[in-house]
Amino acid sequence: MPITVVHTKADLRSEVARLIREHAGRRGSAPSLGLVPTMGALHSGHRRLAEAAVAANDVVVASIFVNPLQFGDPKDLERYPRTLEADAALLESVGVDLAFAPSVEEMYPGGDPLVRVTAGPLAGKWEGASRPGHFDGVLTVVSKLFHLAMPGPAAGQPTAFRAYFGQKDAQQLAIVRRMVKDLDFPVEVVGVPIVRAEDGLALSSRNQFLSAEQREAALVLSRALRLVDERATAHEPLEPDDAVDLIKSQPGVELDYFEVVDPDTLEPLAFNCRETPFTGEALAIVAARVGDVRLIDSMPLKAR
Amino acid sequence: MPITVVHTKADLRSEVARLIREHAGRRGSAPSLGLVPTMGALHSGHRRLAEAAVAANDVVVASIFVNPLQFGDPKDLERYPRTLEADAALLESVGVDLAFAPSVEEMYPGGDPLVRVTAGPLAGKWEGASRPGHFDGVLTVVSKLFHLAMPGPAAGQPTAFRAYFGQKDAQQLAIVRRMVKDLDFPVEVVGVPIVRAEDGLALSSRNQFLSAEQREAALVLSRALRLVDERATAHEPLEPDDAVDLIKSQPGVELDYFEVVDPDTLEPLAFNCRETPFTGEALAIVAARVGDVRLIDSMPLKAR
Repeated sequence: MPITVVHTKADLRSEVARLIREHAGRRGSAPSLGLVPTMGALHSGHRRLAEAAVAANDVVVASIFVNPLQFGDPKDLERYPRTLEADAALLESVGVDLAFAPSVEEMYPGGDPLVRVTAGPLAGKWEGASRPGHFDGVLTVVSKLFHLAMPGPAAGQPTAFRAYFGQKDAQQLAIVRRMVKDLDFPVEVVGVPIVRAEDGLALSSRNQFLSAEQREAALVLSRALRLVDERATAHEPLEPDDAVDLIKSQPGVELDYFEVVDPDTLEPLAFNCRETPFTGEALAIVAARVGDVRLIDSMPLKAR
Repeated sequence: MPITVVHTKADLRSEVARLIREHAGRRGSAPSLGLVPTMGALHSGHRRLAEAAVAANDVVVASIFVNPLQFGDPKDLERYPRTLEADAALLESVGVDLAFAPSVEEMYPGGDPLVRVTAGPLAGKWEGASRPGHFDGVLTVVSKLFHLAMPGPAAGQPTAFRAYFGQKDAQQLAIVRRMVKDLDFPVEVVGVPIVRAEDGLALSSRNQFLSAEQREAALVLSRALRLVDERATAHEPLEPDDAVDLIKSQPGVELDYFEVVDPDTLEPLAFNCRETPFTGEALAIVAARVGDVRLIDSMPLKAR
């Protein structure tokens, strides 16, 4: 099926309603609905998100919107790549039914919203520490997208409404999950694993800004994550200081943080990672600057 | 029909789904759904809200929840009246189908929510100026109630989803409308006119804390509103200073504010109320303390 691309909220709502009605008519039962929120510049990581949504849902909508509210630096917003035509082709090839690509004026008519969703204390640490307002901007646009994509009155009703987020933005995923819980959104949040290039670098729209030399240096991040992952798997003490030392020894990489945290609260683990053998589950998160480019990566840790 | 009273989110969702399915089965068409959020201690003002919801919708849900998040003063929270049995009887007599009366732990499991909705600059003025955090608490619980009452996946789908708020809390109504717009909630907000006692006092759960003498004094608020209303109707300059003087001359009443504002933005009107004849529409709002009791009132103004 060719993908439909719409640019207004009204068209999104009517197209979601049409897709649900048509599917219900063909199958005689209500479909499930999947939503994949993106900022475009889609790569294989997003492809994995869309594939997961298409595999689990009868009707799938992706949104493509570079959200000004979550950018602190206007230059960063300005240079964020916009590749709508290629994005639509990628989504269509995977089987996404509908793409919603609104303008800033369509999403925020009359300027920035006065009422917003705020992540509170979760927004101030890790990524949030260096990006004030970022996660409030994320939650505000995600809550709008949830409300716009969920079938409104008279649209016909899906059997499930699921939204897909990458595990790469681990803090974003945790905060969106928390929003759904704290505000009782009727949405099921699905986290999709990170996709890595063959050399181990987590896929990101920002990777294109790395020189060959910078990219080589950036590989230390995934190496550091693998170091603690191997120890977690082997049920050994994680000794995260070793991972920190590894990154700090890499020229051209300026470490922001490397931490082993609780996957839900993002608080540093309570147990002593230096002497106690690792058990259970945790999340290793890292952020660093390589040249002008800020990179993040993460890895779920699980003892075998 | 006897009213059903539920105390958990799960029961609310399943009962809304049942009511919608049953109605659709009886009528062969999808019903409309009305929501009346309240804090209980229901009086004739709430009755008017519920009547408006019952008149316009096939299925009506009322919530009864004294929301700790919107109280600044723990004593105020503690002494807020709880009258569930009488509330349920009033709602049943009007024809409300379902009452949702959750505990604090049910609404906020594990304590206060981390993620919240914030009213931003709208929250800082008028009522918000003396009640920091109040409107953020209101928006957070209202967004939860919207999400909980809106039929979730597989619940069956109404033709409309409307929520009813009193015009008495004029700032609350304006801020909830703004939230629905800014966050794209699929909800239609309906404002219902103030109900007054025969003596003119706007009905409020707080009126019961007034002595007979205090109540007599409090009547100056509605008199002041009527003063500007008569001038508005007569297309005369409003001269709000006269209303301010009237209130200030009343012993036992401590004026907080009296203003003529734009009904949407709650900003003071741009035109000169002193010399220019009144045209169009506006809102007069007033707040005062009578003894220990803080009272608010308002009146929509319209030139004939």
